[in-house]
Amino acid sequence: MLTDFGLRDSYIGAMKGVILSINPEVHIIDITHDVEPQSVLKAAFILYTTYSYFPKGTIHLSVVDPGVGTERRPIGISTHNYHFVGPDNGVFGLILSKHKDSEVFELINKTYFREKISQTFHGRDIFAPVAAHLSLGVTLDKIGRVIKDYKRVEIPEPLVTQRILEGQIIHRDRFGNLVTNVSHEIFSHFIGHGSFEIEVGPFKTQALRSAYAEVAAGELLAIFGSTGYLEISENMGNASAQLGLGVGDPVKIKKKVKGKR
Amino acid sequence: MLTDFGLRDSYIGAMKGVILSINPEVHIIDITHDVEPQSVLKAAFILYTTYSYFPKGTIHLSVVDPGVGTERRPIGISTHNYHFVGPDNGVFGLILSKHKDSEVFELINKTYFREKISQTFHGRDIFAPVAAHLSLGVTLDKIGRVIKDYKRVEIPEPLVTQRILEGQIIHRDRFGNLVTNVSHEIFSHFIGHGSFEIEVGPFKTQALRSAYAEVAAGELLAIFGSTGYLEISENMGNASAQLGLGVGDPVKIKKKVKGKR
Amino acid sequence: MLTDFGLRDSYIGAMKGVILSINPEVHIIDITHDVEPQSVLKAAFILYTTYSYFPKGTIHLSVVDPGVGTERRPIGISTHNYHFVGPDNGVFGLILSKHKDSEVFELINKTYFREKISQTFHGRDIFAPVAAHLSLGVTLDKIGRVIKDYKRVEIPEPLVTQRILEGQIIHRDRFGNLVTNVSHEIFSHFIGHGSFEIEVGPFKTQALRSAYAEVAAGELLAIFGSTGYLEISENMGNASAQLGLGVGDPVKIKKKVKGKR
Repeated sequence: MLTDFGLRDSYIGAMKGVILSINPEVHIIDITHDVEPQSVLKAAFILYTTYSYFPKGTIHLSVVDPGVGTERRPIGISTHNYHFVGPDNGVFGLILSKHKDSEVFELINKTYFREKISQTFHGRDIFAPVAAHLSLGVTLDKIGRVIKDYKRVEIPEPLVTQRILEGQIIHRDRFGNLVTNVSHEIFSHFIGHGSFEIEVGPFKTQALRSAYAEVAAGELLAIFGSTGYLEISENMGNASAQLGLGVGDPVKIKKKVKGKR
Repeated sequence: MLTDFGLRDSYIGAMKGVILSINPEVHIIDITHDVEPQSVLKAAFILYTTYSYFPKGTIHLSVVDPGVGTERRPIGISTHNYHFVGPDNGVFGLILSKHKDSEVFELINKTYFREKISQTFHGRDIFAPVAAHLSLGVTLDKIGRVIKDYKRVEIPEPLVTQRILEGQIIHRDRFGNLVTNVSHEIFSHFIGHGSFEIEVGPFKTQALRSAYAEVAAGELLAIFGSTGYLEISENMGNASAQLGLGVGDPVKIKKKVKGKR
Repeated sequence: MLTDFGLRDSYIGAMKGVILSINPEVHIIDITHDVEPQSVLKAAFILYTTYSYFPKGTIHLSVVDPGVGTERRPIGISTHNYHFVGPDNGVFGLILSKHKDSEVFELINKTYFREKISQTFHGRDIFAPVAAHLSLGVTLDKIGRVIKDYKRVEIPEPLVTQRILEGQIIHRDRFGNLVTNVSHEIFSHFIGHGSFEIEVGPFKTQALRSAYAEVAAGELLAIFGSTGYLEISENMGNASAQLGLGVGDPVKIKKKVKGKR
């Protein structure tokens, strides 16, 4: 489960109760319920950097749903290894962008919903029961109909010119690490074997580190983090606090040219 | 489990360890551990709006217990479908008010407690082991003796006069939705098929909505929410922040009379 | 599991996914993921006051790891009843200080790690898979080699002179209870059957209580809490807030001498 419902109200309890009433044996794992309220893109990023660690056959129930009660559709998705259930609002956008041969179903068969459907809590009334039925072996083609015009989102791509790659910070984690949208693949393609300078706010570096402790405590560093994206971190500290930077702020990578003074 | 112990200290770990040491196979589900410390009424409301979604036979272990170590009794409750274990301080008051034929037992048989009982942590020493023994099939009549003078609480009833129904806000959720004590039943009985005006702070409306998106983003609305009570919400926003209102603030519903100028 | 990864990012989801991919049947229990970031000693204290409630055979996966990527070693520990997996940085120091005959292994056999090991997230790449393999019955001597020079830490001992025992606050819990490093054993040995005065900031008392409610609401008290250490608490309130005290602040216990004016 991945939601923005928090753990202070009765929402998650209700959803888990609904699931267990349909399949008492299912194993429920929380990824997080603390996505910033209604922040679909943050949910999409956390799901995208987590889903593939789970066992084949896992059902990902992901509900960040500011448009509940509008025309946004409830969907289920099958990729080679996983199922996904939630609103068609972009929360699965990064998954769908990576797995272009996924089957996407609009959930329409009310047999698999709760009897009475509130227009404010599809998490409890549609998504939880559908996920529970999937865990019992029901297939998505029984619950929905294939659609092609589902919502697409992408991680914003860095801008690449001849000399400069300009990306941005897309996530700040609990430790203050600043995760950028510069993947290792894009970086390598741009720089090759040459030298470079990374610039984030007042911090400049010409080195990529492979462990925090390669710099002194309190110093900043650039590193390809555990998610596979370039991160700006502080050894034993909080880079976001030291730099005063957060989501949306730019990162620039300049190619260094030999002989340039 | 529903408690106010939070998840930063060792309390919940100790309780779960005690439970699993007695029944390693039991399936523990957290409703919340983030009830505001010692707020029995909030716990009662969250339990009341969650318990019925769980499978028949579920044991609800609910410990918000500012009176631990006083004369307040430890109790267990059997309703038709569920068991409840915790302090006799009102946390089960709304359940008992709804299920008037419940059997309530004072927990007295120390065979089912931990050997040494701290006067500051009955959650670990009495309630967790009793809940674990119930999950193994022990019945409450083995652990306690029937009592009738248990603690009663009620959700405060709205005041109803001929023209005005005056209720109050009883819960503010993570999204800033303001849940009132006006149930759909009370509202329908009061208004019938007539027209009305709802007034909460500076916000007035003559419409009930069935989905947030029936108003523009940032606008307020009145809706019967997923708990069955009248709520004041903001589409894509936080009604509590916009209105500056919270628990205890009044909501007024006026009957509109035909021909009135 | 006990970590400082929080529940807002993808770290805990990734770790649980890795564990369940190796052993889908394992029962994962969270002690907490909200240890203050990189606070090894707080993690050590929470683990120390929780681990022994769990069933024999439990594997404690404890990752608070500011030195990830440095020379600090990954370790596994076997005590009579439990296994422990995490970094050799003191997080297990209190356990090892109590169970001096524990076997400690440096984890070296990469067969039991993830294939690619990030230098910033051993929780996912080393500790989670090792814990999962232990749950399948693999023994630590297959995964590591015995070491003796593991990291030791102790709870700071109170200073004891003839008339005064001087301890300190080592933990402040969610309710504002101030847990000191004065164990019941040390206290009894120092005071015997005599009388005493406990002094914490402006608060002085000559009484030990056994339940919060022995004083009026809002009043402070001294009590041996559920962890077995002397605590300063406020009945129905927050002692830390009332006293303005927290971790590191001193507590003094003076022997009262008969005939002293």
